[in-house]
Amino acid sequence: MKLLLSGFEPFGGHTINPTQSLLQAMEDYSFTDISLELHTILLPVHYDECVELLLAEVEKFQPDIIIACGLAAGRTAVNLERIAVNIKDIEASSYADNRNERPQDIPIRANGPDGLFSTLPIRVITDRLIENGIPAVISNTAGTFICNNVMYGMLDYIKQSSPGVLAGFVHFPASTEMALHKPSLPTLPINLMARALQLIIRTTVEQLQKDE
Amino acid sequence: MKLLLSGFEPFGGHTINPTQSLLQAMEDYSFTDISLELHTILLPVHYDECVELLLAEVEKFQPDIIIACGLAAGRTAVNLERIAVNIKDIEASSYADNRNERPQDIPIRANGPDGLFSTLPIRVITDRLIENGIPAVISNTAGTFICNNVMYGMLDYIKQSSPGVLAGFVHFPASTEMALHKPSLPTLPINLMARALQLIIRTTVEQLQKDE
Amino acid sequence: MKLLLSGFEPFGGHTINPTQSLLQAMEDYSFTDISLELHTILLPVHYDECVELLLAEVEKFQPDIIIACGLAAGRTAVNLERIAVNIKDIEASSYADNRNERPQDIPIRANGPDGLFSTLPIRVITDRLIENGIPAVISNTAGTFICNNVMYGMLDYIKQSSPGVLAGFVHFPASTEMALHKPSLPTLPINLMARALQLIIRTTVEQLQKDE
Amino acid sequence: MKLLLSGFEPFGGHTINPTQSLLQAMEDYSFTDISLELHTILLPVHYDECVELLLAEVEKFQPDIIIACGLAAGRTAVNLERIAVNIKDIEASSYADNRNERPQDIPIRANGPDGLFSTLPIRVITDRLIENGIPAVISNTAGTFICNNVMYGMLDYIKQSSPGVLAGFVHFPASTEMALHKPSLPTLPINLMARALQLIIRTTVEQLQKDE
Repeated sequence: MKLLLSGFEPFGGHTINPTQSLLQAMEDYSFTDISLELHTILLPVHYDECVELLLAEVEKFQPDIIIACGLAAGRTAVNLERIAVNIKDIEASSYADNRNERPQDIPIRANGPDGLFSTLPIRVITDRLIENGIPAVISNTAGTFICNNVMYGMLDYIKQSSPGVLAGFVHFPASTEMALHKPSLPTLPINLMARALQLIIRTTVEQLQKDE
Repeated sequence: MKLLLSGFEPFGGHTINPTQSLLQAMEDYSFTDISLELHTILLPVHYDECVELLLAEVEKFQPDIIIACGLAAGRTAVNLERIAVNIKDIEASSYADNRNERPQDIPIRANGPDGLFSTLPIRVITDRLIENGIPAVISNTAGTFICNNVMYGMLDYIKQSSPGVLAGFVHFPASTEMALHKPSLPTLPINLMARALQLIIRTTVEQLQKDE
Repeated sequence: MKLLLSGFEPFGGHTINPTQSLLQAMEDYSFTDISLELHTILLPVHYDECVELLLAEVEKFQPDIIIACGLAAGRTAVNLERIAVNIKDIEASSYADNRNERPQDIPIRANGPDGLFSTLPIRVITDRLIENGIPAVISNTAGTFICNNVMYGMLDYIKQSSPGVLAGFVHFPASTEMALHKPSLPTLPINLMARALQLIIRTTVEQLQKDE
Repeated sequence: MKLLLSGFEPFGGHTINPTQSLLQAMEDYSFTDISLELHTILLPVHYDECVELLLAEVEKFQPDIIIACGLAAGRTAVNLERIAVNIKDIEASSYADNRNERPQDIPIRANGPDGLFSTLPIRVITDRLIENGIPAVISNTAGTFICNNVMYGMLDYIKQSSPGVLAGFVHFPASTEMALHKPSLPTLPINLMARALQLIIRTTVEQLQKDE
């Protein structure tokens, strides 16, 4: 079984992005007991390139599962995103992307569906995280920034090209170190988030094995 | 030109729902200068009945425009909702509906599209409100409670039955009086919200006239 | 009876400060029915000068009542401050004062009392505002920025020099117009805040008349 | 050197209070390297009794340092409280104390000072926590509920009876497990908070040794 895991470079004035460490942690972690082949990819925070790079990797690697990860500073729990929307719009975020793009109300794919549901087992995952002592919740908006862009681009692609693939997006809160100079920021420790991501991966693998 | 305007009864422990006053204010207000025929309907906060009642009214009245209004206590500005999602789920809200229904992850329409965009001119409306001194923003989630339920049910119906109809959902913040015993609640005055709703209606009528 | 009313110039990246308009509104408003002589003073957002200017005016004008007003962007209701603390510290705010001063843990007055209560009838005022439909609450911190600085300097002075004077600080939320380009900001309309300030003044005058 | 450390029982609808575990963790932890004699006391959430019990323990144990700990659900970082105020008032909290007392604007001690500063080295502690990777900040209000009540009662007592004692209050955020069924709650892990409390204790001991 093959898993493609993506994260992002820092953006929006933050000097770190915890998803970068999470990719490294998953590479260091042994999924050999479940014979999982793991590829990771760190994406740029740029509206179009992030999707193109991810999909190029998908075509090359042909994964069974794609889990894209992003930072949502200000959220308190691990957020399993339910839906991606066919819009690029920076209004809700206060910053441009890393190449200073500021799209307003632009469709990601002309004539694409308005919304696309995650095909990850988000409820099973959320319940499993909570059972394991990790604050988690299903989120009903991934925003209209880069994270939604990757989620939509990926879900649109697999809907058309590889409908059996389980794919979705997970938003992580700021990590503890990010609050050291901004004490009002809610955080989770990076180790807890790494444990969360292991459980998300394992639960998704189990779901795929059940489906087969 | 015919406009159907809906609001909701109180819910979730609130004793008032400002959308009830807003319906009354729109009935009192004269739209005769633009020959607009206005019908209003106050919906129950119940997952299935709210949609059934609204759609029955739509079939009878055959409106050109449908604007559904709801309360989102905690929000600060008039929220033009961008998208409805095909899910009933009470997790994000802390209360059941008014008949104590607590659905989890239930599709509103089996095999319906995952998401459906508002067909109101939400960006033109948002800009117009701001030009007129009213805090407004496009929202990317109407939640998964009753408000999303009405929005999805309505957009799904018109997509299939009356594709030219302009329809969408507007979330209003708590009104000033609602903060008198809960001073941490952000509010807008009911008069400002009534002026916002007039502008939303007029902007949508102008859009429809342009479309024709 | 003589009342000194102070407000502040804009600060912290805001281009307006609603207390400036509130001073003007109180000057325009007739308090002649209660024979109130009103002086207003607009203070600079600078740690030491703001207090010096206010106290110079107090010595010259010899007011019976001093009500100092400030902006607390992010708050939702009219905030009657309960206590000033003997500290200048910019940590809790994200900006320096308007001359780029960034004091840390500096006493406002060496060997001054740690805290000083407002001598305004803050509970009577809060109740009166709420009865009149205005969201209001007693606040237990005026921060450690300029507003607290003015409140402490003023209360310390009158405690030593004119113990009968009623004096205190009121924090106002952002005004509606301030949210036009920042829709997540909670607001109150400037007219409602002007009505609040009239009631605060009248209630304090009545209290002073009762005390005599 | 003798340290008295206090925590609280659960309150306000929470079934746990992390300060209870923190007391246990400090008892389990070895401070033998610094010859620290540690007593802990779990206080009831009742306005008057909490202070009486703490002061009875102070009189009996004669500590050099008193660190009182409380829960402030909703805060994000370890909060070193700067000041206690001479008021019991439940407005800012939404719940009564555990015996259903709801005082309004009642002085804790008749004719006591309005405010009393913590005598802990709060800035040195805050800097030390941050250097050690723990989100921390000085807070300028401990509220007007039980926590402020204990802080004021204790500081008032030592000011009169034992001026050399270092005493103060630390508010801790909700612990991770408290967010499992309320995912919007910001949290810190209990282990990180225990490490914070060790550092708070060690830094205070060092300060006292320097003072002597």
